[in-house]
Amino acid sequence: MSFNSFGHLFRVTTWGESHGPALGATVDGCPPGIALTEADIQPWLDRRKPGQNRFTTQRREADAVEILSGVYEGKTTGTPIQLLIRNTDQRSKDYSEIAKTFRPGHADITYHQKYGIRDPRGGGRSSARETAARVAAGGVARQVLAQLLPDLIITGYMVQMGPRRIDRTRFAWGTIAENPFWSPDAATADLWADDLDALRKAGNSVGAVIEVTARGVPAGLGAPIYAKLDSELASAMMTINAVKGVEIGAGFGAAALTGVENADEIFMGNEGKPVYSSNHAGGILGGISSGQDVVVRFAVKPTSSILTPRASVTTDGQNTEVVTKGRHDPCVGIRAVPVGEAMMACVLLDQLMLHRAQMGDTPGGMIG
Amino acid sequence: MSFNSFGHLFRVTTWGESHGPALGATVDGCPPGIALTEADIQPWLDRRKPGQNRFTTQRREADAVEILSGVYEGKTTGTPIQLLIRNTDQRSKDYSEIAKTFRPGHADITYHQKYGIRDPRGGGRSSARETAARVAAGGVARQVLAQLLPDLIITGYMVQMGPRRIDRTRFAWGTIAENPFWSPDAATADLWADDLDALRKAGNSVGAVIEVTARGVPAGLGAPIYAKLDSELASAMMTINAVKGVEIGAGFGAAALTGVENADEIFMGNEGKPVYSSNHAGGILGGISSGQDVVVRFAVKPTSSILTPRASVTTDGQNTEVVTKGRHDPCVGIRAVPVGEAMMACVLLDQLMLHRAQMGDTPGGMIG
Amino acid sequence: MSFNSFGHLFRVTTWGESHGPALGATVDGCPPGIALTEADIQPWLDRRKPGQNRFTTQRREADAVEILSGVYEGKTTGTPIQLLIRNTDQRSKDYSEIAKTFRPGHADITYHQKYGIRDPRGGGRSSARETAARVAAGGVARQVLAQLLPDLIITGYMVQMGPRRIDRTRFAWGTIAENPFWSPDAATADLWADDLDALRKAGNSVGAVIEVTARGVPAGLGAPIYAKLDSELASAMMTINAVKGVEIGAGFGAAALTGVENADEIFMGNEGKPVYSSNHAGGILGGISSGQDVVVRFAVKPTSSILTPRASVTTDGQNTEVVTKGRHDPCVGIRAVPVGEAMMACVLLDQLMLHRAQMGDTPGGMIG
Amino acid sequence: MSFNSFGHLFRVTTWGESHGPALGATVDGCPPGIALTEADIQPWLDRRKPGQNRFTTQRREADAVEILSGVYEGKTTGTPIQLLIRNTDQRSKDYSEIAKTFRPGHADITYHQKYGIRDPRGGGRSSARETAARVAAGGVARQVLAQLLPDLIITGYMVQMGPRRIDRTRFAWGTIAENPFWSPDAATADLWADDLDALRKAGNSVGAVIEVTARGVPAGLGAPIYAKLDSELASAMMTINAVKGVEIGAGFGAAALTGVENADEIFMGNEGKPVYSSNHAGGILGGISSGQDVVVRFAVKPTSSILTPRASVTTDGQNTEVVTKGRHDPCVGIRAVPVGEAMMACVLLDQLMLHRAQMGDTPGGMIG
Repeated sequence: MSFNSFGHLFRVTTWGESHGPALGATVDGCPPGIALTEADIQPWLDRRKPGQNRFTTQRREADAVEILSGVYEGKTTGTPIQLLIRNTDQRSKDYSEIAKTFRPGHADITYHQKYGIRDPRGGGRSSARETAARVAAGGVARQVLAQLLPDLIITGYMVQMGPRRIDRTRFAWGTIAENPFWSPDAATADLWADDLDALRKAGNSVGAVIEVTARGVPAGLGAPIYAKLDSELASAMMTINAVKGVEIGAGFGAAALTGVENADEIFMGNEGKPVYSSNHAGGILGGISSGQDVVVRFAVKPTSSILTPRASVTTDGQNTEVVTKGRHDPCVGIRAVPVGEAMMACVLLDQLMLHRAQMGDTPGGMIG
Repeated sequence: MSFNSFGHLFRVTTWGESHGPALGATVDGCPPGIALTEADIQPWLDRRKPGQNRFTTQRREADAVEILSGVYEGKTTGTPIQLLIRNTDQRSKDYSEIAKTFRPGHADITYHQKYGIRDPRGGGRSSARETAARVAAGGVARQVLAQLLPDLIITGYMVQMGPRRIDRTRFAWGTIAENPFWSPDAATADLWADDLDALRKAGNSVGAVIEVTARGVPAGLGAPIYAKLDSELASAMMTINAVKGVEIGAGFGAAALTGVENADEIFMGNEGKPVYSSNHAGGILGGISSGQDVVVRFAVKPTSSILTPRASVTTDGQNTEVVTKGRHDPCVGIRAVPVGEAMMACVLLDQLMLHRAQMGDTPGGMIG
Repeated sequence: MSFNSFGHLFRVTTWGESHGPALGATVDGCPPGIALTEADIQPWLDRRKPGQNRFTTQRREADAVEILSGVYEGKTTGTPIQLLIRNTDQRSKDYSEIAKTFRPGHADITYHQKYGIRDPRGGGRSSARETAARVAAGGVARQVLAQLLPDLIITGYMVQMGPRRIDRTRFAWGTIAENPFWSPDAATADLWADDLDALRKAGNSVGAVIEVTARGVPAGLGAPIYAKLDSELASAMMTINAVKGVEIGAGFGAAALTGVENADEIFMGNEGKPVYSSNHAGGILGGISSGQDVVVRFAVKPTSSILTPRASVTTDGQNTEVVTKGRHDPCVGIRAVPVGEAMMACVLLDQLMLHRAQMGDTPGGMIG
Repeated sequence: MSFNSFGHLFRVTTWGESHGPALGATVDGCPPGIALTEADIQPWLDRRKPGQNRFTTQRREADAVEILSGVYEGKTTGTPIQLLIRNTDQRSKDYSEIAKTFRPGHADITYHQKYGIRDPRGGGRSSARETAARVAAGGVARQVLAQLLPDLIITGYMVQMGPRRIDRTRFAWGTIAENPFWSPDAATADLWADDLDALRKAGNSVGAVIEVTARGVPAGLGAPIYAKLDSELASAMMTINAVKGVEIGAGFGAAALTGVENADEIFMGNEGKPVYSSNHAGGILGGISSGQDVVVRFAVKPTSSILTPRASVTTDGQNTEVVTKGRHDPCVGIRAVPVGEAMMACVLLDQLMLHRAQMGDTPGGMIG
């Protein structure tokens, strides 16, 4: 089984391999009448694009998106939007050796075990290149959200690389776009640069933790049981390549708290809306957004394609050693930041549409 | 929107409130010809049942399951199985005060914000009582799995309560069922007992981390992109009440590792199957099971219903204080253990069915 | 595979067998705040109830519905509504003979071929008794529609029994509820009574055609390609027991028309809305409602359970003859009328919710 | 809402407009290891291709399919297959007049009513050109079915054009491919040629009935209630442009039959399989295939784009007359034949995969 779609009503289906002619996303269910051109999507793709600095893969891809359908005279029509991105820097090298063995920690072996066949060129479908299609789809979602929820701001950033975490007392939104790590803490970004240079030279790689915050999410998105906003976000983030953990608000930290500590106390604010003393809940209670910032974090494992030899086996069952040459990100977490943002955008729009379906445009219960 | 179903082919829909006449689960898609009686399901429910020791809520429920459909002469027929559990210890007290305010950290406020109406009796649909229905459905899944994957063993246990973690050097599978905390480390269980007694007396509660391990999962379950085994598990666990984080294998710990450390090296085992030097991947690579143990952990926040007063607001917008009397678990994580096992069983069966759909009963690629 | 759910957002899952303890429907996704009691649903069930006249099965069932969840203080809460109907007149006779052979034209043989097991008591899951659950769910949908689309009127009626069709020049809406055949043409109803008496005495049965008209459907429901309003209706009606054909508007008659004849010409009406010279389209163009009456017809085959002996085989492969005694409708089409209405109600509400999701409460394009 | 996908496990999503740069289909869930090249798909597209004789539109499209993903070294990999077809003969004429009015009987008006925007170039998404993508996807399904069900033969043909039906006593499978109408009755094909020449000259069009027969369908595909094989087929056929009715086996004719006549009597055949005296059921009983030929018919309305003037209104609410010039099929039913076959192939493969999911490769119940 091979589901390549996500979303219930704002539905994204991605397709394509790392070294095929192209990859892309089909976006179905988009509301009509939304202004949309390639220029609206391209900036988001440019943020994820490889080869922008020495900390990401040196593969050179323009990642230029083409809209093949669903838009007429610059506006969405409500019919499916096909977003196509051509692969231009795939290398036609000999993959026969790579096809015979499995990188430890990589999908190579499980694709083989499941399907009995895999496209070994650049990792085929398992390549993080697939995430370009998500970012393009996220660009469409952002364009719709800009109209439906004009106060919404989605921001991703790195909060940990290897064992080193940011210092939250130095957190500055404005810093995020100013360093190659999307760090909200400039001082830590400098240290990460040193860390990563050392790892790269050692033929090694490293993991990271990304946080995505959505400010301006209205109360009421989500649902109580199996379509909880948090389970939808967990599912969405966990589908990103190399992600091994997802948490909301205090997350795993909540396990160490008491109920007294964890309770985000509620007060009436000046604008007639509830305000909270804290946000351990990460903006979600009982699966439904409360109006506080929605905060999600996800852990990205270190790249498995490394220059250091690791023990493995061949397809015919012989022990061997694998060294992965080629162009690989020493920390895939960096380029996962815009991907996490894109997933947040898609999930929030999907949930907004689901909410409208059940409730219409009318609000649920007001307080006060 | 209000999706109360999970699973693609082994599809479970739960229904019911804490203080209504009954709750239950409709299990659709179950393979036919599987031996199934109430006696096969009841033991799993008994493990989750409240009131079994001083560490869980004192509500007294028999949690007796009735099979209303889908079984003929003790065997499943392939048609939907309705599992009904009557509520017998709901108390007809006055809920009018409770209905006018919101417990901090609880779904009360977001249900109100979304729907403008909520059933305040015992938390209504947001009560953890809903998880009884999941455990019943999980009992059906286990019965099928016992036939299709006879070597599969699913085991849940608590690995952290509050800030105190188990000592993994003392890990013993046999210990888990012998203490009220499902702890694999007896010494830590004793300390937790003291911790929890103190918290309970203080009118407080505490969070926990649960781990669920599935041994004997065949290689090849899952799919590459948006139906990854890990995203399915993340989604499933995150739907359990009070869960705020999910991780697979090394999880958030993987962020701190290098690629050299994280690579689970592969060797050919004596049985002609690959063996691994470690299991940072938690048995899942590229969204597909590798044959190693599948290991999932989830964080449960502390119960928000506590005796300590917390600041809140009323439905008509006045500041107030909330104290929650009544019967509540001081650590909901304890009873989440059998729920996590049930979700694991349902997800694995669903994935096995999806795998059969695409691949038939034939294996994918053998190694060696 | 065994999907027992229909609908995308207003989602109905039915369960239960003819001779089990109960059957029912789980209704998920219902908007909150809708007044709903058993008394709102019961009248629709009473219309479908067996044993009301000599033309339907003499099985005596109260078909009393119980609401087990999703309603608080007489209003829906947005959480799943469990509708339970107990079976009270199942007969504990010996089914061992019936289990060994297959009624020609009945699901007996295919259930056996697919599952290798079937519940032979009263047809088990294949009994038309399952449709009681649909009618109950349709009652919920009607209650929501009464609030969201107050001008909507859904009416089902029989237009053909055996070879005899109604005379449309005598069509009267008021006549439908006044005869046991739901005929809009009283004179034809009298002839059908004679026809059916004769068939019943001969141990035979007969087919029928049912038409369901929805008046007051707003323009814009449905979607262009695979979620067309007509394909959703076709799917819904074709799931009713014994249905072998579905058509919209002119339906199969459109095949014989020219484009000039078939074009429903459009004019501006006095109310600033388009009016049409005819309704060959049955109110649906390109999969989307136009504001004209939505008209669906479906063909019901004759009951396969008849007293006249028919050739068949046994489960162990011997030729035999089958005579079906017991209580069976000589024309199942009669009781399919309220079922068709229920499916129309569920589909329209589901489509209305889907439409709101994409478009909000704002209209699409006005004319003029 | 705008679902552009069909199928549960073999899942096809189509995209694209009549006059955009390209259209296509994303095929998800395809089993791996199936030989597949463009050359396997192209013949099916060539059968649907416009401009092949004087009875179809004179638009000239090569309809050349390109496989962009999901295939490696000539075999499917189990990942999504993107099938792209470029539009080459779209005409850049002035559509401003067309955009201001609505063709009677066409989707123009309802797209406007729903979305408030539409792509008027060649009908945009509502063009029958979308069906090319289905035929391409059906080509993939056929390639899989050839391996999984080698005895399966799917054949579509026209059985009625306007009021004139084929004479079934002259039915010959071999005749179908030998005339431009896919008629199994050569004599009627000649009469249809005269009929259609006359209609075309008169600026008129005509409807048709298509039958699709699948021989060699194994018993057991489908499911009892809402995923019946017949409802899946009804839904699939009803999604094809201009289809207004679908029937299985005797279909609407069954309404006129008695139970004695309609019962397909069963006998044990020489090969140890049941044989039937007739096939009123169209190969489906209780939603599940019986092993008899699966027979589906669908009615196609006459093309609404005709040269004869018809009354209509403008977008700003003025009465007007519409005459549709340009290249249009006088009988869209002709080119619907390969489309109906493609839908049958996709549905059968999807059902086969669903069946394997629940039952594995093992058969259900044998007879004898």
